[in-house]
Amino acid sequence: MAIPRLTEAARDAALARLPDWRLRADGLALLREARFADFSEAFAFMTRVALLAEKADHHPEWHNVYNRVAITLTTHDAGGLSARDVALAGAIDAVLRGHPHPA
Amino acid sequence: MAIPRLTEAARDAALARLPDWRLRADGLALLREARFADFSEAFAFMTRVALLAEKADHHPEWHNVYNRVAITLTTHDAGGLSARDVALAGAIDAVLRGHPHPA
Amino acid sequence: MAIPRLTEAARDAALARLPDWRLRADGLALLREARFADFSEAFAFMTRVALLAEKADHHPEWHNVYNRVAITLTTHDAGGLSARDVALAGAIDAVLRGHPHPA
Amino acid sequence: MAIPRLTEAARDAALARLPDWRLRADGLALLREARFADFSEAFAFMTRVALLAEKADHHPEWHNVYNRVAITLTTHDAGGLSARDVALAGAIDAVLRGHPHPA
Repeated sequence: MAIPRLTEAARDAALARLPDWRLRADGLALLREARFADFSEAFAFMTRVALLAEKADHHPEWHNVYNRVAITLTTHDAGGLSARDVALAGAIDAVLRGHPHPA
Repeated sequence: MAIPRLTEAARDAALARLPDWRLRADGLALLREARFADFSEAFAFMTRVALLAEKADHHPEWHNVYNRVAITLTTHDAGGLSARDVALAGAIDAVLRGHPHPA
Repeated sequence: MAIPRLTEAARDAALARLPDWRLRADGLALLREARFADFSEAFAFMTRVALLAEKADHHPEWHNVYNRVAITLTTHDAGGLSARDVALAGAIDAVLRGHPHPA
Repeated sequence: MAIPRLTEAARDAALARLPDWRLRADGLALLREARFADFSEAFAFMTRVALLAEKADHHPEWHNVYNRVAITLTTHDAGGLSARDVALAGAIDAVLRGHPHPA
């Protein structure tokens, strides 16, 4: 029961709606970085993403140093991008839009 | 090494600087409630307060239901309010001021 | 689309499988307390319950003081206990069984 | 007020007491990985490390994918390893020792 990989057309349409994300050079992942006022704010954001991820049963690859968080979204079972990545990227954007100090 | 309890004068001066907090009827604790858009936002706030509390080694009594958090601050070793409660209340206010949806 | 309230028989059968929970005096909620080594451990437990709750879209009423967490489960839309409370209670028990210092 | 960098002798003594950490190839950072049962357990561990880090005002560089967490400790103000890294590494080890499923 593999998860379907997005077609190139679907991927490009999704990217057009996600201007704060970029495609990884290999075309197989979405990338976004966010910067916060401090570690506390960054980790509170990570907690909200953790809740989104667990609810969606789709988890990010992410890296944090102090007030910066770098997120990679990809779907291993699809061998690249799937609708799950697009949905999670949109939900993360909604959190960041509501947040006082994204960058 | 008990922690000194605030004098009534110091307590009243602190309350004047913390308009979003009220004194518990017995005069021994500070109370504040906050309301958020949803559970995710409420729990992210709680995570930030947890970081503040652990850093200060002074922890709240608190209650959460969905998007609402009720916080009680008191210092058991002082038998009432101490400077630690006033400092933590101020730090919680700073988090809420930066937050998009406190109420 | 109210959520169905458990019959008394279903409620009693559930309680028999949840020996660490007790029924609130009014029969409308499940109660459990847990005690941890310190605040850090208690809050890590709360984070795991937050993930469970958000995934199930069913949230606890809970109270924390330092290393103690008291949880109340009820379903407002059912006017009492529903299958959601029983499922969340079971999931919380699984977290506590895996945890090194529950009490 | 730069933070003093560990001498090579102090660094080697610290590593001898931290058998689960290894030195990065450049000698300037400590590295450890941990693996958990699932994302929930991994994120609860990260929450405990976040509390330690904020308390110590010394934060990790870390990477998480699902149940795996990779931690890098270094002190930018020291241009390499300092006593802060050794202290935080020891505190992280204590969390992992108490944890049911580290690997």
